[in-house]
Amino acid sequence: MSVSTLITPIVGLLGLGIAYVFFASIAKRSGGEGVIAEIADKIHKGAMIFMKREFMLISAFAVVIGGAIFFFQPDYGPQQSVAFFLGALASSFAGFVGMFTATKANVRTTLAARQEGQGAALSVAFFGGSVMGLTVASMGLIGLGGLFWYFSGKNEHVAEIMEGFAMGASLVALFYRVGGGIFTKAADVGADLVGKVEAGIPEDDPRNPGVIADNVGDNVGDVAGMGSDIFESYCGAQIATIAIAGAIGARLGAPETVEFLNKIGTEDTGLLMQLPLILTTVGLLCSVLGILLVKAMSSREPAGALRVGTIGSAILFIMSSFVTAKYLGLSSAVPLCVLSGAVGGIIIGLITEHYTAGGPVKSLAKQGEMGVATLTISGLAIGLRSVAVPLLTIAATVFISYEFAALYGVGMAAVGMLGTVGITMAIDAYGPVADNAGGIAQMAEMGEETRKITDGLDAVGNTTAAIGKGFAIGAAGLAALALITAFIQKTEVSLNLTDPEVLRTFFVGIFIGGVIPFLNGAITMEAVGKAAFDMIAEIRRQFREIPGILEGKGEPDTDRCVDIATNAATKRMILPALLAVGTPLAVGFGFGSHGAVALAGTLCGALVVCILLALMMSNAGGAWDNAKKYIEEGNHGGKGSEAHVASVVGDTVGDPLKDTSGPSMNILINVMAIVSLVIAPLIA
Amino acid sequence: MSVSTLITPIVGLLGLGIAYVFFASIAKRSGGEGVIAEIADKIHKGAMIFMKREFMLISAFAVVIGGAIFFFQPDYGPQQSVAFFLGALASSFAGFVGMFTATKANVRTTLAARQEGQGAALSVAFFGGSVMGLTVASMGLIGLGGLFWYFSGKNEHVAEIMEGFAMGASLVALFYRVGGGIFTKAADVGADLVGKVEAGIPEDDPRNPGVIADNVGDNVGDVAGMGSDIFESYCGAQIATIAIAGAIGARLGAPETVEFLNKIGTEDTGLLMQLPLILTTVGLLCSVLGILLVKAMSSREPAGALRVGTIGSAILFIMSSFVTAKYLGLSSAVPLCVLSGAVGGIIIGLITEHYTAGGPVKSLAKQGEMGVATLTISGLAIGLRSVAVPLLTIAATVFISYEFAALYGVGMAAVGMLGTVGITMAIDAYGPVADNAGGIAQMAEMGEETRKITDGLDAVGNTTAAIGKGFAIGAAGLAALALITAFIQKTEVSLNLTDPEVLRTFFVGIFIGGVIPFLNGAITMEAVGKAAFDMIAEIRRQFREIPGILEGKGEPDTDRCVDIATNAATKRMILPALLAVGTPLAVGFGFGSHGAVALAGTLCGALVVCILLALMMSNAGGAWDNAKKYIEEGNHGGKGSEAHVASVVGDTVGDPLKDTSGPSMNILINVMAIVSLVIAPLIA
Repeated sequence: MSVSTLITPIVGLLGLGIAYVFFASIAKRSGGEGVIAEIADKIHKGAMIFMKREFMLISAFAVVIGGAIFFFQPDYGPQQSVAFFLGALASSFAGFVGMFTATKANVRTTLAARQEGQGAALSVAFFGGSVMGLTVASMGLIGLGGLFWYFSGKNEHVAEIMEGFAMGASLVALFYRVGGGIFTKAADVGADLVGKVEAGIPEDDPRNPGVIADNVGDNVGDVAGMGSDIFESYCGAQIATIAIAGAIGARLGAPETVEFLNKIGTEDTGLLMQLPLILTTVGLLCSVLGILLVKAMSSREPAGALRVGTIGSAILFIMSSFVTAKYLGLSSAVPLCVLSGAVGGIIIGLITEHYTAGGPVKSLAKQGEMGVATLTISGLAIGLRSVAVPLLTIAATVFISYEFAALYGVGMAAVGMLGTVGITMAIDAYGPVADNAGGIAQMAEMGEETRKITDGLDAVGNTTAAIGKGFAIGAAGLAALALITAFIQKTEVSLNLTDPEVLRTFFVGIFIGGVIPFLNGAITMEAVGKAAFDMIAEIRRQFREIPGILEGKGEPDTDRCVDIATNAATKRMILPALLAVGTPLAVGFGFGSHGAVALAGTLCGALVVCILLALMMSNAGGAWDNAKKYIEEGNHGGKGSEAHVASVVGDTVGDPLKDTSGPSMNILINVMAIVSLVIAPLIA
Repeated sequence: MSVSTLITPIVGLLGLGIAYVFFASIAKRSGGEGVIAEIADKIHKGAMIFMKREFMLISAFAVVIGGAIFFFQPDYGPQQSVAFFLGALASSFAGFVGMFTATKANVRTTLAARQEGQGAALSVAFFGGSVMGLTVASMGLIGLGGLFWYFSGKNEHVAEIMEGFAMGASLVALFYRVGGGIFTKAADVGADLVGKVEAGIPEDDPRNPGVIADNVGDNVGDVAGMGSDIFESYCGAQIATIAIAGAIGARLGAPETVEFLNKIGTEDTGLLMQLPLILTTVGLLCSVLGILLVKAMSSREPAGALRVGTIGSAILFIMSSFVTAKYLGLSSAVPLCVLSGAVGGIIIGLITEHYTAGGPVKSLAKQGEMGVATLTISGLAIGLRSVAVPLLTIAATVFISYEFAALYGVGMAAVGMLGTVGITMAIDAYGPVADNAGGIAQMAEMGEETRKITDGLDAVGNTTAAIGKGFAIGAAGLAALALITAFIQKTEVSLNLTDPEVLRTFFVGIFIGGVIPFLNGAITMEAVGKAAFDMIAEIRRQFREIPGILEGKGEPDTDRCVDIATNAATKRMILPALLAVGTPLAVGFGFGSHGAVALAGTLCGALVVCILLALMMSNAGGAWDNAKKYIEEGNHGGKGSEAHVASVVGDTVGDPLKDTSGPSMNILINVMAIVSLVIAPLIA
């Protein structure tokens, strides 16, 4: 059986249409008036300023990189550079839509909580997130599906051209995720330190000039940043699988190819290339059903509704992949890979939940009684320990999916992990909407009752965000691994480590690769520190110079704070971007005839270290964050106790780890992998 | 030219004789009387208790491992297991001698400072360290040289038999270094927290029951721990080179062998096997000259004298290696490798000094003004950043030495880095002697003047200790890399990564390998936390229950505290030991016919992550430590200021990082590498 290549982009457009319907249902609600509308408007405008400025910076980088592809790729430069720009645009568009919607949905969630209660509030917040989720998935299908429809059968380099799209997506992710991470933590740390600690006013107090920037930051980091991160992995997983299928097609006669095709149950390598697209198309439909399921359950307990929606659509997706394989006349090898990837993703998510919300958090909170140092050490130890199961899960997923369908199976496992991105991303983006809704309720002084509902939604959002982060790391890792596999296949260098010279070069590569994530961690952490410093100075200045500001009579200049965070997020973004894009180029071309071997080593070293650091940083940060919340609930002396003081420090230490440096690792390895894949023909 | 194989063990015996002369010159000095002698005696006895208990635990492990070698190695099991026991005994003996001497030299340094002034004190402290340095180098020469003399030409498995010696040394290092690290930090944190913070009495106050354990800990960690660590790397580097030479000898006809032998300038592969032993023999003589140089300069400024001694003997060693090569009729290829290794070691040491005593420390101290969280984040960032140059230096050393003499050159670079171990280890061991001398002066209330001299010696010791740590990591990394290279050569598996199945297995291995150091970090950090907890409870109990203890009238039960730290150091040592020894066995045998590939991946992943974490942890910890000292000198508000409070927390966070978890990484990777090399014939 064959499937029209038009199906994927058409379903993508359909998904975009559904996203629009969701958006319209939010937009038609009242955005409030007076103070509420004013605050919401400021957050919305701040978010748009960030998006615009990052977009301009991205454009500058994109022109250079796109131009380089155009001129230096001899065989398909023009097509690949067009795909590159399309990828960058698609990711930017998804980010823009998500941010636009999230900063409309936040205030409407607050109002729904006040006027209609929890069910309606959950509905609005989740639909706000769903617009992002569906847009991410749909843009992937439209972009990749459209390119495949246009080029397949017409251009033998269809896989390579599509790599351009993934590279565009990666570039945007780099800026949104890392820049967003710097923005959000600079604003958060700055607003908290001067507002809460020095001036002694509550969190989200309207007198604090940094508070709008702080709320903008939630969206910037967790909507645009997370969305572009997932989008990148989503495209990367599909591209890697397509590239591996392309390599199989090029070796049709070989005995291992024959054996492989027998296993899969087809001889149509074109179908193998199309298969990831077909599966993600099915995945989008499953996500839509999952979203409707959450909607139908929105009057129930929020955490349960979200869980049923996610797990429901994952199960549906796995079943559908078996049906799809059957329909296409394939064996169950590929759907079994999808199953292993999906199960792997769920395990990683659950382990993340354990370390950031389970037993370890309680024992960490107890350590707070012994003081700051003990709590800090214990948090680091939790972070170090938390990497084991996720890494071994990824290893097991690789091992198992290879058994079913060789390297193609590894790519398919990544597709399986990311297939229901529509709903997993929706739940991720729901978090900051709920968080913002609470912030607006506080700033507009809307009373206990409203705040209680938004707090409840926010608490659920925190847990889903932690799980989402673990999942994003797992998916990014597996996608990167698939891309690296495709790179090694494509370069076809003799990566024979029993040849001493190859071994030497590979070792040197591994060492270089291991260093890069550590450097990236240092640079991003220091960027947050410096940006927060600027923010602190500005907030202090306003408290000092604007008359009556602390009595609520003077007007704080919130735009200035947004501006400072945006400046920091763009300026301090350049070094990490150069590191990510520049390393593969420097190694690949710098090692001359051994470039491919050295780069393979660099990618292997960077892959494992990136995943390790990403998990360690995210989980340590999440554990400190929740230990603080646990103490604030009245445990170990509650607010104001020694344990609480220690936990506040722990939380602050964890902030840049979990929201800036940790997440930037996902992007780093994927950018390095896709850049390597794109330059592979030039260094092979 | 050929050299008698008897030379090496004979020079080793000579070295031991010189060490004895140094020891006698210390022992003949008066050990003081009254309180002073009593305190010194307690430290000495505590150290001996630790050594005895660790030795018993080591014996249990050794019997199991030695027995396994005896029965499961079909070809040379009995010989290899004897070598294994000899290696364990040699390392234990070196550790015992070092500890015995250091805990005699400490009080004599104090007395020399009081009675004769700085020059004599430096002389005693440095001679105390030199006994350890010379014993380490000599035991290596006696053991390895003796085995080579006995087996070469008689048993074709001479290289494999000698691997047993290195494995024995590694096992002992594991227990002394990791157990010592747990001991020293449990005692330090416990004594400081209850004594300084809770009871408000100064450091090293005789009323504190934990203070003897704290002083024992300095010796346990930095004499026995560091000594066995260096001894392991020293043996590992030589064994790896011998193994690589053995592999070359087995492929005499191959064109690359012919080309290689041309480059070196000999056809005598037996000489190639002996060459590392010849060079370390020369290195020992250079170290003795360096030590005498320091002695001759002991009346000058201490830092300068130590520096002239180290650099002087390094230069002498490099020059001698060229002369030796010329004498043996070899080309300059091998001495050039020695040069690159020695230079690499110096660069890594200097970079470590920069990050733990230079500009970054000052900016870190400044961050203390912003509070604990900022200081903690900045320290972590410094640690992350500090890995770059050392890792790239190791990579460059590998790259360059390969150019000169292929994989054999990589081993030779490690030999070059470790050749003057006699003096580098002497300077490392000098640190805790000086530190202890200060502690005794304080406890025995010997007055300002004496304390000032011992403080000066101690300050120099802190810097040399930091440099030594960086150097130890670099040397351990290079030695492990050489061992892994030898493992890959020996297994002769087709490590062809273009074969998808190999690639898959290798990836899975890398993931497993990356996880192990993180787990090891978590386990050792938690071990310190739990051990410190026991110590704190005991000191609190004594303060509560012993009448008049805080007025200096009641006698603190210091033995009990030593006992608790020793218990912790043995009990909590078992899990890390199982992890280090068990991982290669589980992977090597667990992956069936792919065991060698999976294990190669595991070693590669563990190697890079171990070095990264070791450097990051040691340097972050060192930077926090010195930032505190810098503030205590009166900067940023001095003692009692907000910056100072923050820096005390930073120092406490850094303690287990720099003295337990960080150093344990060196051992972890070397144990894994040597176990892999030993089991290579069984899984190939």
